Amino acid sequence: MTFPPIRPELAGIEPYGAPQLPVDQVPVQLNVNENPYPPSAECVADIAASAADAARTLNRYPDREFVALRAALASYLSRDVSGEIAVEQVWAANGSNEVMLQLLQAFGGPGRTALSFAPTYSMYPEYARDTMTAWVAGRREDDFSLDLDRARAMIEEVRPDVVLLPSPNNPTGTALPPEAVTALCESAAEDGIDGLVVVDEAYGEFRRAGVPSALELLPAHRNLVVTRTMSKAFAAAGLRLGYLAADPAICDAIRVVRLPYHLSAVTQAAALAALRHAPELLGNVDQLRAQRDKTVAWLRDQGHRVADSDANFCLFGTFRDRHAVWQGLLDRGVLIRETGPEGWLRVSIGTPEEMAAFEDALVEVIKEMS
Amino acid sequence: MTFPPIRPELAGIEPYGAPQLPVDQVPVQLNVNENPYPPSAECVADIAASAADAARTLNRYPDREFVALRAALASYLSRDVSGEIAVEQVWAANGSNEVMLQLLQAFGGPGRTALSFAPTYSMYPEYARDTMTAWVAGRREDDFSLDLDRARAMIEEVRPDVVLLPSPNNPTGTALPPEAVTALCESAAEDGIDGLVVVDEAYGEFRRAGVPSALELLPAHRNLVVTRTMSKAFAAAGLRLGYLAADPAICDAIRVVRLPYHLSAVTQAAALAALRHAPELLGNVDQLRAQRDKTVAWLRDQGHRVADSDANFCLFGTFRDRHAVWQGLLDRGVLIRETGPEGWLRVSIGTPEEMAAFEDALVEVIKEMS
Repeated sequence: MTFPPIRPELAGIEPYGAPQLPVDQVPVQLNVNENPYPPSAECVADIAASAADAARTLNRYPDREFVALRAALASYLSRDVSGEIAVEQVWAANGSNEVMLQLLQAFGGPGRTALSFAPTYSMYPEYARDTMTAWVAGRREDDFSLDLDRARAMIEEVRPDVVLLPSPNNPTGTALPPEAVTALCESAAEDGIDGLVVVDEAYGEFRRAGVPSALELLPAHRNLVVTRTMSKAFAAAGLRLGYLAADPAICDAIRVVRLPYHLSAVTQAAALAALRHAPELLGNVDQLRAQRDKTVAWLRDQGHRVADSDANFCLFGTFRDRHAVWQGLLDRGVLIRETGPEGWLRVSIGTPEEMAAFEDALVEVIKEMS
Repeated sequence: MTFPPIRPELAGIEPYGAPQLPVDQVPVQLNVNENPYPPSAECVADIAASAADAARTLNRYPDREFVALRAALASYLSRDVSGEIAVEQVWAANGSNEVMLQLLQAFGGPGRTALSFAPTYSMYPEYARDTMTAWVAGRREDDFSLDLDRARAMIEEVRPDVVLLPSPNNPTGTALPPEAVTALCESAAEDGIDGLVVVDEAYGEFRRAGVPSALELLPAHRNLVVTRTMSKAFAAAGLRLGYLAADPAICDAIRVVRLPYHLSAVTQAAALAALRHAPELLGNVDQLRAQRDKTVAWLRDQGHRVADSDANFCLFGTFRDRHAVWQGLLDRGVLIRETGPEGWLRVSIGTPEEMAAFEDALVEVIKEMS
């Protein structure tokens, strides 16, 4: 008799989670791609007032269809497209991880397959496992780009029900060109399968000038889903608000598997408040994009390889002993992430002071190791 | 080619949801067992201040293990037991529906079976469907009690991995006696299966004097899980905070399937604030319990059958045409719920004014129909 009677395939698995260390032990935390700029005092006050409004009727269930929030998100996304994103095209949940879970509950599941191209976001296989969706990972090229011919051949071979494409990619940082998204949407829809293509733009707002969002492609591909989050650009990782834009029929289908009242009244109110402060928060995004470009340039000046980044982090390397580099930085009070292909490390973009601390520490560590 | 490519077993299903009507159309809403008393101004102010605190570091991910909230919930639950509930015994999620989903993800799933006894909570089969858990419903007796011999025989026959027992039961209102919980925990653990018994005490705080909580039985049965919610007693349906107490190994197992950071920093802060106001909120519970007893007595005086209620609602009947009664009440501005076995109706306990409106309307409707 084993106790607890957990499903055998889950037994012994460690829960997912980036290593966390208290900020009094490690002052510079650049490991989980958080936005280093907290909301302004005005934004905090607006969130508090909105939470108070929601609390006054907290005894009632929240709006199950969160219509006001969907409208605000649609209006925000419409800035990124030449046309307009409609309310019916928008869905949201507690973090983009719940969005992904719901997508796989509705469109994946037993007997169905999700496909991505490694290196890719490390949570995807867990969402697949949790929904009993088969998981297949193709490969990106050595420079982390996607070879379109190989990718299309793989889609034709696997016939995935859901293709998961982070763009900008995590942990490598580079966005997919629109022609790649178009080609994969076409491949996934061939032979009467209508596989969904989910472009995960969690870091979309950080993309470099001239890089378009996949939102532009929605009118052309009904099997395209674009996901976003308020965690990064809106500096609201603590709020847990992920969302997507897609064909309204896809949003409707998700309503069958969503838990009723999944978005609390407080979450809806706080997210609406943060959205009202988009100009302030996106100003910080511009600062972070400039800092990111500086960090990429500095790392290359130092002789490191750096993947092109459209995100708020850089993947750099390669190191014979990346763990030693990671540990050396940690010993100097700088926590980054040991992730990505062997030999690479990922650093989140922090404030100028934090990046200066990172650079100083890295120079020391490299000197010590050479 | 069907679009969207939703799983065939989900196609055409209507999303779950109680019928909702705007309060300006139907002033007396007694259909979803909400607590009619909103939080006090002091409680609202505390929630707002706590949300502001959380918002000041909203750019950071929340505490993945929500230790402070688990401790506060453990301390709250410890009032109901002679011993003490430890932090490690407590788990929480966005509503008790997410708690149930996580329990079935970890301990149910493909090839496993969940069992309940009808009439039972109408969402359970949906949680089972969403986790690919087989669903078996036994039956309660005509008076909605559980015949223990028949229930044990059913457990021996079905060998369920998870038994779901709402107590107080929804939609009937009656709590299970502790000897029933004990007997079912023993049956579920026979023959080396160690099936979990989940006693869903969503309405636990409303139980009548002398009715014990299943929390008392936790030390005796490691396969027992007791779930609660802040939606009802804490007047916080809008907050979405469900929780459970169980063997620490059960909480640990759930951590494998929970989405990382599933509880937002704002939710954690608001729940902690509401818990600080437990005395005020539980005072309202006492008022509602008294009103519930009055409503049960009044309905019986009027010649109706009423199930004994340990909850904040009553199931009453029986009517040859319950829909006509429901519609007659709605025509008079009172929304109740057409649920439960054929012929029965369920009314939530509201304020004295709301219950007076319900009683007046019911007298009129019955007169008109007879």
